[in-house]
Amino acid sequence: MTMDNIGAVTQEILFLGTGIMGAPMARRLGLAGLSVVAWNRTENKAHELAGAGVRTVRDLRDLGCKLRLVVVMLSTGEVVDQVLFSPAAGCPVVEILTPGSVVIVMSSISVESALRQAEQLQARGIDYVDAPVSGGERGAMAGSLTIMAGGGIDTCQRIQPILAHLGTMTRVGAVGSGQLSKLANQLIVGISIGAVAEALVLAELGGADPRAVCNALQGGFADSTVLRQHGARMLDGRFDPGAHCTTQLKDLSTALALGSKLGGNFPLLTLCTELYATLCRSNRQSLDHSALYLEARDRTPLGSS
Amino acid sequence: MTMDNIGAVTQEILFLGTGIMGAPMARRLGLAGLSVVAWNRTENKAHELAGAGVRTVRDLRDLGCKLRLVVVMLSTGEVVDQVLFSPAAGCPVVEILTPGSVVIVMSSISVESALRQAEQLQARGIDYVDAPVSGGERGAMAGSLTIMAGGGIDTCQRIQPILAHLGTMTRVGAVGSGQLSKLANQLIVGISIGAVAEALVLAELGGADPRAVCNALQGGFADSTVLRQHGARMLDGRFDPGAHCTTQLKDLSTALALGSKLGGNFPLLTLCTELYATLCRSNRQSLDHSALYLEARDRTPLGSS
Repeated sequence: MTMDNIGAVTQEILFLGTGIMGAPMARRLGLAGLSVVAWNRTENKAHELAGAGVRTVRDLRDLGCKLRLVVVMLSTGEVVDQVLFSPAAGCPVVEILTPGSVVIVMSSISVESALRQAEQLQARGIDYVDAPVSGGERGAMAGSLTIMAGGGIDTCQRIQPILAHLGTMTRVGAVGSGQLSKLANQLIVGISIGAVAEALVLAELGGADPRAVCNALQGGFADSTVLRQHGARMLDGRFDPGAHCTTQLKDLSTALALGSKLGGNFPLLTLCTELYATLCRSNRQSLDHSALYLEARDRTPLGSS
Repeated sequence: MTMDNIGAVTQEILFLGTGIMGAPMARRLGLAGLSVVAWNRTENKAHELAGAGVRTVRDLRDLGCKLRLVVVMLSTGEVVDQVLFSPAAGCPVVEILTPGSVVIVMSSISVESALRQAEQLQARGIDYVDAPVSGGERGAMAGSLTIMAGGGIDTCQRIQPILAHLGTMTRVGAVGSGQLSKLANQLIVGISIGAVAEALVLAELGGADPRAVCNALQGGFADSTVLRQHGARMLDGRFDPGAHCTTQLKDLSTALALGSKLGGNFPLLTLCTELYATLCRSNRQSLDHSALYLEARDRTPLGSS
């Protein structure tokens, strides 16, 4: 792949949304020597970003030029809509883009929102890639995010060298496929947390040492990132949120609604969504998604201890 | 830990059961320089074992001496009972053991069988460890099994140097805990296969490239041994059995029965057991346990294609 025809694109990158994930991502692009200008709804982290060579603006009309590459890490699909198509940032982003530009939405939003945004932009000759991530704040800071990209083959090839500063990008299909892949990720993570929770509860209920069981299982076919990271959280009782159980419930519900709309029946996903709904209705709704373990314990005589 | 007081124990090891798993395990002990005599219900692999310095006998009465360490890798709890306590192998194994001997049962059997066997042996002053494994034939050949050991702390320490030739042993609690830990392992494996199956079906149903999704997810929180190994099997349609779905159903049913007996409610385990029961009632019952993917597809419009 050559960088030739993205020379113009990389002249200046507009980065929208410098929150928990966006700020370290924008920093990494700046530190890599790319020319980055950042915008956020509230004026945060401007000083920190300046240290990485990232300029910040409060109003897109102050940019004074048209841009060709936009990276979006805003909180929801609705906010992405507002900033792209209405004057939430001073003027709609679409008005400062030229045909042939690329918009990369790295927020986790619905497949439907991604398809709608892509359609609106493509009507103006602007390319769109949905590229949500897995890996959390730590992955954002380390540049080790898993990036699931949905978009045209050529467009994905063009943006790959830029996203390489943020993590490993895999093209998983046409527009919308990135968000679909993120839902598949959340489905596996949610159900795996439930499985590890039931396994550790069964082990303890039967009289084994659950910590030793958790260690032993890491050597075999049951090994997983969830067993290692969330197993340890469960046994330590550390439920300060990395990822909120409410976010997990939202993602599972979205996956389930999409699966149903496509005519499918997903029994494990359905049950796991119900289990997270129970968790989120309890007084534990502000905890990490690994707190599903506490619900699993409550379904046994261990719960009253 | 000293090896001093197991000197006598290691003089000769009796290995019972030289099937798919047992034969390579006995070979490894022989190749490590330990003195091993093997017995099997049928005369198999004697020549292959001899090459590793392992002597075989057809009748335990021909041994001509008493032994102090027995490793058992027979097929079921019932067969283990027969060989230990009735003359299935010429004479009951208990009759050629002296007080202070150790019996290590590495077969996957029920917790109840393990407790009963331990009780009968302890009445004769013989120690018992249940030490089932995860890792399959490949792990047995490579000496990289995960060994989940239940038994006394001292006894587990005494046998650790011997089991180290077969894999990594973790003591997970008192007698029975090894089998309990194996059930916890099977619970996680079974539910994880179901989760990966639903995730890959959702991705394909929504129009993404499931192979690319499977690759992308290996970088993030959804990563697991099941995703890597069984995800590939599902996408390649390779369902020749490594582990039979009937075995998976048996293990999940055992775990569920135990969990219920202990007063617990395990919703994901319950559902996953039902899914495997459906699979085993179909014309797919002779396939690998990853064939749960085919059932997941059948619950969507993809199933008719």
